Amino acid sequence: MAQTEGRVARLRALMEERGYDAVAIRCNADLRWLTGAERVLDDETAHVAFVTQDGLWLHTDSRYYHAFLDRLGDDSPWQVDMDRVSAERFVARLAAENRCRVVAVEDTASVGFVDGLEAGLLESSAACLLPRLHGDLQALRMVKDDEELALLRRAQEITDDAFEHICGFIKPGMTEQEVRAELENYMLSHGADAVSFGSIIATGANGANPHAQPGPTVIREGDLIVMDFGAGYCDYHADMTRTVAVGEPSEKQKAVYEVVRKAHEDAAAAVRPDVKGADVHAVAADVIGEAGYGDYFGHGVGHGVGIEIHESPSFSPHWGKPVPAGSVVTIEPGIYLPGEFGIRLEDTGVVTEEGYVPFTRLGHELRTVG
Amino acid sequence: MAQTEGRVARLRALMEERGYDAVAIRCNADLRWLTGAERVLDDETAHVAFVTQDGLWLHTDSRYYHAFLDRLGDDSPWQVDMDRVSAERFVARLAAENRCRVVAVEDTASVGFVDGLEAGLLESSAACLLPRLHGDLQALRMVKDDEELALLRRAQEITDDAFEHICGFIKPGMTEQEVRAELENYMLSHGADAVSFGSIIATGANGANPHAQPGPTVIREGDLIVMDFGAGYCDYHADMTRTVAVGEPSEKQKAVYEVVRKAHEDAAAAVRPDVKGADVHAVAADVIGEAGYGDYFGHGVGHGVGIEIHESPSFSPHWGKPVPAGSVVTIEPGIYLPGEFGIRLEDTGVVTEEGYVPFTRLGHELRTVG
Repeated sequence: MAQTEGRVARLRALMEERGYDAVAIRCNADLRWLTGAERVLDDETAHVAFVTQDGLWLHTDSRYYHAFLDRLGDDSPWQVDMDRVSAERFVARLAAENRCRVVAVEDTASVGFVDGLEAGLLESSAACLLPRLHGDLQALRMVKDDEELALLRRAQEITDDAFEHICGFIKPGMTEQEVRAELENYMLSHGADAVSFGSIIATGANGANPHAQPGPTVIREGDLIVMDFGAGYCDYHADMTRTVAVGEPSEKQKAVYEVVRKAHEDAAAAVRPDVKGADVHAVAADVIGEAGYGDYFGHGVGHGVGIEIHESPSFSPHWGKPVPAGSVVTIEPGIYLPGEFGIRLEDTGVVTEEGYVPFTRLGHELRTVG
Repeated sequence: MAQTEGRVARLRALMEERGYDAVAIRCNADLRWLTGAERVLDDETAHVAFVTQDGLWLHTDSRYYHAFLDRLGDDSPWQVDMDRVSAERFVARLAAENRCRVVAVEDTASVGFVDGLEAGLLESSAACLLPRLHGDLQALRMVKDDEELALLRRAQEITDDAFEHICGFIKPGMTEQEVRAELENYMLSHGADAVSFGSIIATGANGANPHAQPGPTVIREGDLIVMDFGAGYCDYHADMTRTVAVGEPSEKQKAVYEVVRKAHEDAAAAVRPDVKGADVHAVAADVIGEAGYGDYFGHGVGHGVGIEIHESPSFSPHWGKPVPAGSVVTIEPGIYLPGEFGIRLEDTGVVTEEGYVPFTRLGHELRTVG
């Protein structure tokens, strides 16, 4: 509970600084972070929180109500209810009752929610500004506390074990889909309470699509397999990619792998507190560009990971801002050769005063399977 | 491709009727439906479509670009690109170039996207109205075509098989989490290319939380287990709930089960084309209320299923509109007794001239496992 109180305090300090009387929060990841309620929220947009300097309200429905009460405990400062009103009307009512003039909303909230909120305020004759939280809650969530780091490390341990298991499992002749089923079953049977996302298992030329979905393609001797996956643990997520060779890799495969590996390791070495995200991306992009593969690496080299699989900050050309210590970010350069193969090498780690510390205990060598 | 052309034509007819020069589409489910591109889209909001009477544009990024080209084929009317511009600027540019005055946006789009679009239009000195599509694309997606029904039926077949399998697998002493891992592994190993959602396996008192997440709770003789799950197939989804008894159920368990079963079957019998959703809900709610359990059934009795797990229409008190033939909807009444047990019985089926036709071949009897 102590850590969660700290989170609410950080949000209220931001509200004070910005002159917000209240914030209305719809995003499940923000709600998980702010309330600390473990393993209640799923993919449904069924909740809204209303936060002022004096009060904490959480509106949900009957499907989640008792689970919230259970997780928050008897002495919780949160007032939870499941009145049958819409989220918009719930917020409009509280804004009017508390005479709020400035209620900030997340820019990830739907335009339908904000339209409905405006209509509800009009009906209540409440004059109220609705400024946007431009990633402000994501910025608060960016720096992880000890509780969060422990969950992320646990998720990675399960992911590491699953990788070792699947390397022993893969044989030529299996399909991508068979490997995916075994991998996810292993994670769910060994401590994961979710998978971070539908695992990418992309063999041969399929690996050249960075977000390929596993299918009936058969794994053959000589393929490279891109495996991008992770375990979910208490609403936190691991995210890792390893590319493995089925049998002895070709000279070209080995050479391209070494470029990706160098891009990864040089980028990791460039990480320090408050480094600019774009600068870390540039280190990896330069290695790949100098090797002549610049046209075959189109995505950012890293993204934040936590309650969401993709969150702030980013190691990407668009992230000119500093990346503070305590941020948890992936490093994942790749080279994708259409019709041939793909290679990606991804760790998730934390930015510390000593640099980038990956959560995984696995190395970066090109592993051979089969 | 023929079916997809029909979908674009239906959207353009709606645009004509409403006087929209263009629509900008962000929602992945809408994009899947409109483009017909199978198994490309995942959970990331990384794409935007721009549709006019004359053109079809799709903006994505390098991670998905080649997969879209592959799925859409060489003769596709879609112009796909992966320019490194934001979705907002992409839409603002096309709106300005095509001299659009009225560009409709989904009300599910983020307020950040709409704010950004307004800023982009201002920069282009383009005067443009941005009316909301209030569930209009969901309304178009509501009535399924033959291609969609075939995918939904296939997803249900896999789900039915998985239920038979798991009934033979469950033994007292196992945890919820073990059952969940086995169930999902079975689906992914027998034709599913995804799971519809993290399966709910809730035993004993956990079943009284309608959206409980599986955990370390051990299954015991005398428990009821609520199992809510489904297979994903080509981006379409099954959604089914069965409640099973571990060993011989008590008289109370049997009696409450019969109430839920009657609520389900009476509601199903009330379904006909253009029935009001609220009326179907009322049938189930009345059965449960008359049996004295009205306080223990808090959710709507059904929701649409397709590319999304929850889509239009609804059998809920809030859906006063007619439910047209061709809609695919769940029926899922439940009774949740805190501290004791929960029961839910859910089928997914299609609304036809002959009434409600469930996809499942399973019956509604209380099955005993263990």
